[in-house]
Amino acid sequence: MGIFSPGASPMSKTHQKPKILNVETVARSRMFRIQSVNLIFSNGENRVYERLLPEGRQAVMIVPVMNDNILLIREYAVAIEDYELGFPKGLVEPDEDILVAANREMMEEIGYGARKLTVLSKLTLAPSYFASSMTIVLAEDLYEHRLEGDEPEPLTLVPWPRSHMMKLLEQHDFNEARNVSALFLAREYLNQR
Amino acid sequence: MGIFSPGASPMSKTHQKPKILNVETVARSRMFRIQSVNLIFSNGENRVYERLLPEGRQAVMIVPVMNDNILLIREYAVAIEDYELGFPKGLVEPDEDILVAANREMMEEIGYGARKLTVLSKLTLAPSYFASSMTIVLAEDLYEHRLEGDEPEPLTLVPWPRSHMMKLLEQHDFNEARNVSALFLAREYLNQR
Repeated sequence: MGIFSPGASPMSKTHQKPKILNVETVARSRMFRIQSVNLIFSNGENRVYERLLPEGRQAVMIVPVMNDNILLIREYAVAIEDYELGFPKGLVEPDEDILVAANREMMEEIGYGARKLTVLSKLTLAPSYFASSMTIVLAEDLYEHRLEGDEPEPLTLVPWPRSHMMKLLEQHDFNEARNVSALFLAREYLNQR
Repeated sequence: MGIFSPGASPMSKTHQKPKILNVETVARSRMFRIQSVNLIFSNGENRVYERLLPEGRQAVMIVPVMNDNILLIREYAVAIEDYELGFPKGLVEPDEDILVAANREMMEEIGYGARKLTVLSKLTLAPSYFASSMTIVLAEDLYEHRLEGDEPEPLTLVPWPRSHMMKLLEQHDFNEARNVSALFLAREYLNQR
């Protein structure tokens, strides 16, 4: 850590973790399981929280770079009942390598593979409710290769100029937290090179 | 749009929205409701998706700036069963103004109010599953004012030097997508000023 270690300051001492007294499944559907968690904090406070268990598989999101563009898709999102602009993404199959999954998802969703894949980050999503995480991958040196996916309709491919990457933030349909993070992380990585 | 309008290119024509045939609640708990949505895409493909309805309240996340620091907290997140480093956040009360909510959450979680509050963005979170969104607010010109919140234990305050903001990305417990987005959005805003 050396000189810069704000995390070690007296104000940021870490708590002792709460003790989990009981976990039970309180509701279940085809895709989700809801657990109720009864726990006691180190100061004696008792709480009952709820959390969601999806299928427990890892997810991957890919920022594909092709010449002067980054490639995005428009895909239907049922909870907002509208189309969302974002990067290709999908679930990692059991025993599948994360970069293999990234390449497969790209082939299924935009019809390209990549010769160069770089992990930028691994993000969580509302960890009070979800345990799942998503790995963000930059894809370069693309080649055409289409695989059949399980999409209900062909996805709309949206090439976006790298020179105007930040203009994506002004699009009304580009505002999902993982997409916004991936955009910034990709720019940070590309600019530092 | 003028010269720069990649969204208007022929490759990015938008689809006609799928038609929702039926929505039903398939599971329910104290906090969540799971809906099954039967829909038909414009090409005739039929799908049954699931989505989650939380309490439907808006959420707010605040990036507080105090002198040369930004202020973060460490809070327990039950789905990952660990403490998470992130910005103060919380739910907006019914009929509560979003900036009033931002100020209240700050007072409850870190003991400060702010004389200047600026909306940076409104982010969604996995809109295939959730309809909820979170407004990201920058807070400046802080003053001491503590309100009692519903936290089970005092939150650990972590002041972080603005000069090393991006070092947060190297912390093992700072990796939630909305926190990462908020960090970049705050830096962008502060740098452009």
